[in-house]
Amino acid sequence: MRGIVKERLFTPGPTPVLIEAQVRAATRDIHHRTEDFRQVVRETTELLRYYFNTQNDVLLFSSSGTGAMEGAVANLCSPGDRVLVGTAGKFGERWLALAQAYGIEAVKVESPYGQPVNVEEMKQKLEKSGPFRAAFLQATETSTGVSNDVKALSAAVGKLPETVLVVDAITGLGTTDLRPDEWGLDVVIGGSQKATMMPPGLAFASVSEKAWKVIEKSKSPRFYFDFSKERKNLVKGETSYTPATSLVVSLHSVLNYIKQIGLENLIANAVMLADATRQASKALGLKLFATASPANAVTAVCAPEGLDSGAIIKELRSRFGAIIANGQGTMKGKIFRLAHLGYFDAADLFAIVAALEIALTKVGHKVELGSGVRAAEETYLKHVDSVEQRVGAR
Amino acid sequence: MRGIVKERLFTPGPTPVLIEAQVRAATRDIHHRTEDFRQVVRETTELLRYYFNTQNDVLLFSSSGTGAMEGAVANLCSPGDRVLVGTAGKFGERWLALAQAYGIEAVKVESPYGQPVNVEEMKQKLEKSGPFRAAFLQATETSTGVSNDVKALSAAVGKLPETVLVVDAITGLGTTDLRPDEWGLDVVIGGSQKATMMPPGLAFASVSEKAWKVIEKSKSPRFYFDFSKERKNLVKGETSYTPATSLVVSLHSVLNYIKQIGLENLIANAVMLADATRQASKALGLKLFATASPANAVTAVCAPEGLDSGAIIKELRSRFGAIIANGQGTMKGKIFRLAHLGYFDAADLFAIVAALEIALTKVGHKVELGSGVRAAEETYLKHVDSVEQRVGAR
Repeated sequence: MRGIVKERLFTPGPTPVLIEAQVRAATRDIHHRTEDFRQVVRETTELLRYYFNTQNDVLLFSSSGTGAMEGAVANLCSPGDRVLVGTAGKFGERWLALAQAYGIEAVKVESPYGQPVNVEEMKQKLEKSGPFRAAFLQATETSTGVSNDVKALSAAVGKLPETVLVVDAITGLGTTDLRPDEWGLDVVIGGSQKATMMPPGLAFASVSEKAWKVIEKSKSPRFYFDFSKERKNLVKGETSYTPATSLVVSLHSVLNYIKQIGLENLIANAVMLADATRQASKALGLKLFATASPANAVTAVCAPEGLDSGAIIKELRSRFGAIIANGQGTMKGKIFRLAHLGYFDAADLFAIVAALEIALTKVGHKVELGSGVRAAEETYLKHVDSVEQRVGAR
Repeated sequence: MRGIVKERLFTPGPTPVLIEAQVRAATRDIHHRTEDFRQVVRETTELLRYYFNTQNDVLLFSSSGTGAMEGAVANLCSPGDRVLVGTAGKFGERWLALAQAYGIEAVKVESPYGQPVNVEEMKQKLEKSGPFRAAFLQATETSTGVSNDVKALSAAVGKLPETVLVVDAITGLGTTDLRPDEWGLDVVIGGSQKATMMPPGLAFASVSEKAWKVIEKSKSPRFYFDFSKERKNLVKGETSYTPATSLVVSLHSVLNYIKQIGLENLIANAVMLADATRQASKALGLKLFATASPANAVTAVCAPEGLDSGAIIKELRSRFGAIIANGQGTMKGKIFRLAHLGYFDAADLFAIVAALEIALTKVGHKVELGSGVRAAEETYLKHVDSVEQRVGAR
């Protein structure tokens, strides 16, 4: 007897959605050229500033995060420009592909999958092999579960008046302490299906004054992702082209929820879940893929020697309806990834760790049942004083 | 006493949504890299072929329709190419802006707002002033409520082996008889918030074999709207980048509904509503903005002499919660536009015409109450034999 099995997402995007926000959007017809909607856009823009922890403009696009990444390249760079790209995973590689598509020379600083990007090397290149129009880095590399030292890189870029720093924070936002204004992160990119607790379809980009000056002079073609045009319209509470209205209304609702619980608590929640996942994995004798600088957004766990991670994922899927991510590219079959960004709580984690213990047992890798969960509970209790006092129950 | 006032959209996008489709999407977490979702994508792609009346590939983008328009330009044209653009409204002008953004020389055939594009002149230019990489035309120009002779243009383009025809059918699909395969419409573009009865956020593009050959050779930068990459992934039931999953599930549901009522009946419904709106306007002594070749998607009506159309629109909005569109650009204040594309029925039309009669009276333009509605009813009855037998009640 299989009984009831509920579907559960534990993937680093899409993530579980705040259903109230979706239902709110689903139950009405919306026109975007109305004062009602303009008000929603204006409030959402302000809430995005809160979420991004910035006073910079935050632009809103109806697209996936990749669209805003392309926008950053097309708006900041001109054909023939040189840029510096830090990469140690699938999303770092996307910057290289984007540069290539736009005829931009990318100098690459590459680290192996599972390692953070070597920011020291990036700093040296910035100082000695410039000039660069821009430097590109992931705040957290979703494909490997690694966090990069954005702050250190920003200090180096800040010294160069003609170079801007672009940070892919698609899974970094809401999981990582990022300070665009204090550190000088010129363009920060986000997406809706991550810590934002929403379905995919919206992308965000914050843009600093320094970046706006570069954008004025750049010559790559762009239209749908034209940052300047978008900025001009947002002031009026409008987007340049018809926005995904139902998603914008959801976003408005979700960001209000995030503001209510507090950005610092949303981040602390991810910190706690990531720590508990690491401790549970260790207790189960599983190696972590990212040891040097693990991200709070997602934890990449290595499959036991000789076992395909796909078998564990399949077991979790069929037995518990739990969808967790496999590795991408050459990491496929070697790791699985558990997400902590957005609408996850401690009980979700206890459940998936217990399910993982059973899945491991069923695929022939014996573990002590309950030992992973116990480690997760202990970690939770360590964090609980600070978390419980700050995060309101919901 | 104002009593109950329900909000009603009569705009040519966004349009009233099929609420069942939205609610279906809202009530579940969806991951896009699952067999379940791939199946939805595969079925949706097939349903899009039905909706587009084509056997060509139909691509799906998470963006507004403008994104797919940009995609058509970026994928088909290289910098320095010459293209032919027919324009007689705001959306025709968008082709010109896109060509400019991409460094493409646009030869323009322009007609005044309210007139159809002079397709004869386009044909002459194609024959005598070529070569052109592509010709661009709106099936229906939403800003003026005009239908263009796509079929006649396609016959001329079809004779030129190196030239492709791109049709903006964002409001043409589901309102107009279009035959991409029979006529040779190489790229046809659509959007979700039109006759598709959905919120905005998805765009579609059908692509012919002839167009794929041109795309292979073109050199403009593109990434998010890369047609070839999208085609390759769609075969696997996937999109290149994270799709707006909740909207895709809604689309799947809506297209099933459209298939159930029948595309020809969806179009006949728009034909009936447009005809009834024109007859009602005439009965009320109002001039139509587009006389030569009115579209079925939307009817543009001139405000009475000396009266700002905004006053009528405001009255409809505040008194009846009905949102109808003003003119755009220089047409603002002179016309108002009533939409017929998608989820509108005859009773919706009777209601808005009656409301219009009252709005006109209230802004000081006396009309015989009921005379417009009577004309609409009579027109409905003329169409009813064919419509009633074919469209199932819902």
